[in-house]
Amino acid sequence: MNTVKIGICGLGTVGGGTLRVLERNADIIRARAGQAIEVVQIGTRRDNPAYPTGSIPVTRDVFEVADNPAVDIVVETIGGTTVARELILRALDNGKHVVTANKALIAEHGNAIFQRARERGVSVAFEAAVAGGIPIIKAIREGLSANRIEWLAGIINGTGNYILTEMRDTGRPFAEALKDAQALGYAEADPTFDVEGIDAAHKLVILASISFGIPLQFDKVYTEGISALELKDVRYAEELGYRIKHLGIARRTPQGIELRVHPTLVPQERLLANVNGVMNAVMVDGDAMGPTLYYGAGAGSEPTASAVVADIIDVSRTLQSAPCSRVPYLAFNDDHLSDERILPIEAIETSFYLRMEAIDKPGVLSRIATILSDAGISIEALIQKAPRPGVATVPLILLTNRVREGLLAEAVTRIEALGSVQGRVVRLRMESLDG
Amino acid sequence: MNTVKIGICGLGTVGGGTLRVLERNADIIRARAGQAIEVVQIGTRRDNPAYPTGSIPVTRDVFEVADNPAVDIVVETIGGTTVARELILRALDNGKHVVTANKALIAEHGNAIFQRARERGVSVAFEAAVAGGIPIIKAIREGLSANRIEWLAGIINGTGNYILTEMRDTGRPFAEALKDAQALGYAEADPTFDVEGIDAAHKLVILASISFGIPLQFDKVYTEGISALELKDVRYAEELGYRIKHLGIARRTPQGIELRVHPTLVPQERLLANVNGVMNAVMVDGDAMGPTLYYGAGAGSEPTASAVVADIIDVSRTLQSAPCSRVPYLAFNDDHLSDERILPIEAIETSFYLRMEAIDKPGVLSRIATILSDAGISIEALIQKAPRPGVATVPLILLTNRVREGLLAEAVTRIEALGSVQGRVVRLRMESLDG
Repeated sequence: MNTVKIGICGLGTVGGGTLRVLERNADIIRARAGQAIEVVQIGTRRDNPAYPTGSIPVTRDVFEVADNPAVDIVVETIGGTTVARELILRALDNGKHVVTANKALIAEHGNAIFQRARERGVSVAFEAAVAGGIPIIKAIREGLSANRIEWLAGIINGTGNYILTEMRDTGRPFAEALKDAQALGYAEADPTFDVEGIDAAHKLVILASISFGIPLQFDKVYTEGISALELKDVRYAEELGYRIKHLGIARRTPQGIELRVHPTLVPQERLLANVNGVMNAVMVDGDAMGPTLYYGAGAGSEPTASAVVADIIDVSRTLQSAPCSRVPYLAFNDDHLSDERILPIEAIETSFYLRMEAIDKPGVLSRIATILSDAGISIEALIQKAPRPGVATVPLILLTNRVREGLLAEAVTRIEALGSVQGRVVRLRMESLDG
Repeated sequence: MNTVKIGICGLGTVGGGTLRVLERNADIIRARAGQAIEVVQIGTRRDNPAYPTGSIPVTRDVFEVADNPAVDIVVETIGGTTVARELILRALDNGKHVVTANKALIAEHGNAIFQRARERGVSVAFEAAVAGGIPIIKAIREGLSANRIEWLAGIINGTGNYILTEMRDTGRPFAEALKDAQALGYAEADPTFDVEGIDAAHKLVILASISFGIPLQFDKVYTEGISALELKDVRYAEELGYRIKHLGIARRTPQGIELRVHPTLVPQERLLANVNGVMNAVMVDGDAMGPTLYYGAGAGSEPTASAVVADIIDVSRTLQSAPCSRVPYLAFNDDHLSDERILPIEAIETSFYLRMEAIDKPGVLSRIATILSDAGISIEALIQKAPRPGVATVPLILLTNRVREGLLAEAVTRIEALGSVQGRVVRLRMESLDG
């Protein structure tokens, strides 16, 4: 039996978890891969007491791993887009296969990295880049390969989902729920990447690419975070039968492809609405299979390692008898990627949740309704709260039919200009997710 | 670009759907597979007006397809374990790859079929055999390959799930809900396979084998159907915060492996409890990734075809550069299959729901509680309904702690022997599904 030799670069949560899973499950992994998998070198700037390296040689220079002639597969778990990028390109140039958990790198530089891998005749595997413990890349790229994929919608950032779950369950505002997430280690000291949707956008770009056969286009994603979300909107949504989830959505339309990350009202009976805490889930709808859903842990040491090690096993299988036909990186063969247009957010059609503070006097609702109706927008549901003592305005909550965002935005501008509406109109998108 | 040549045997729902998906999505499939996939022959006893064959040659003798030198991959969608088995073995002997949707055949004769395929150096793919539109075989066999899988639980029969959903939602008894399912085409005229759990047992055996690395052992599954399920138990379960689902469960324990299909109480907040109608879902828990769930259509023409075509694409990719290392049929390499013991149902530990009719007089509950307590069984919840006018007994519903089934059965026998308990004690198993 052959042995496949692994070099792990980075010994943080993911690299350490990979080492631990490879060691603990060595028997199972050998039985599945048909060959032993051995870690022969670890590159890390510092030791990590949580993940003892035993007798495995450790270097402080990760590039030594990329240059090590004994290494077959370089596992990159450093993160970031600078050293990690250089390291991966060096490993590829040295004819090594690469397994990476780096979503930012794949989303922003994947096209160039895959090109280099093709030139060198080696593999780059990145299952761990999206939704850790859920094998969603494999599901879409291989399991659903018969389908014309119509749309996908995912809870693909656990931090954000934890905060939204806390806001709903405990009635605490965003800032407090965030502090909680930080105390539990679910959110970083600087939570921008997670709560502003950048992390979700990285993952969405990868999912959209393998679903629709388009190149990775991170700069085209519309991204809106959850940091401005108010508790009252979580509650009004609940009252109307919805939950607010931070979704990444990609959809094929006759006009082009939608790529967007934003807080979204989802009917509360949908499975996605019931994915709580740090868990992730991705719904994918295709023309043959219909709606499907994949649920699991999206981050954490061993769930992410689970994906890294699955990739190592996949790559190991191709090593036994190279050259073997590989699954295309972006699911579709390179010469079949399409240049379909990514739609600007103004051109996208959804239903909307609108909340405004209206002065409590006759005729106000009628004026608002007229503005909407003139724009061809109809009201599907409405809550008008009773006046509160000492407050001149009442909250007015509306759900609209499906409307192009540009049109809605114009109508909202006109509503905001009414003397009888105070402040800005809060606007959230809704998705029925019903296939 | 090469062309892979397909022969389809059987032109029913699945074979017809496969033909349709291959034709409709030919462009997408070619882009993903890196080669054209062409149906060169169809074997069917009769034409199916729902699926026109156009200019594709049709034969009435499916064995002609297995013998056709132009065919690379034989797709078997005939069903059953007689002709289908002979056909597949003939195709393998002729050096052809096989894609099948036949769960009964794989569950009952898979070990021999895989052996033949190994001898001939060809592939047998069977993603469509379990949960149609959900790529669950690929997920477990490849996506979760880093994990020691601890347990799985699945709603893997859409007919049964439709009936249970109807019973709960509309308050109709089993027989009426079944009639409804038959009228809608969700259940066969003879519904035994579906409602008695045989179909689910076939699928469970396959899932357990690829999860635990054990041979297919259909004869060892404990199987209990839903046809005896009473509406009142659906309601009492609801009252206690549970839903009744017909689950296939496989679990690794220190004593051996559990393999069982039976109606099961599931806490109503679990995702599995919220899988409704004909939809399927499988929950899989592994040591590294934690709990994951896969949801989608479990049957039907195109969802099943989605899996068949994905297998065709998988096999096609290996054709480009044979011999290529294949994923082992049962996930673990053949020489690593273990002979772990499958537990008899008496040795399995679960919580239980018990319902009995007790004579409404002092001391009865205490006698029942004593029997349970003497057996070391504790009562976790209890409903005692008020006496009904003119009825001498009251329904008594108990939830127990986790207990070995053999022990519970003895206690139930003793309870049934009490003069103050009428008739038999209804007994349903419960699963918390919390990892």
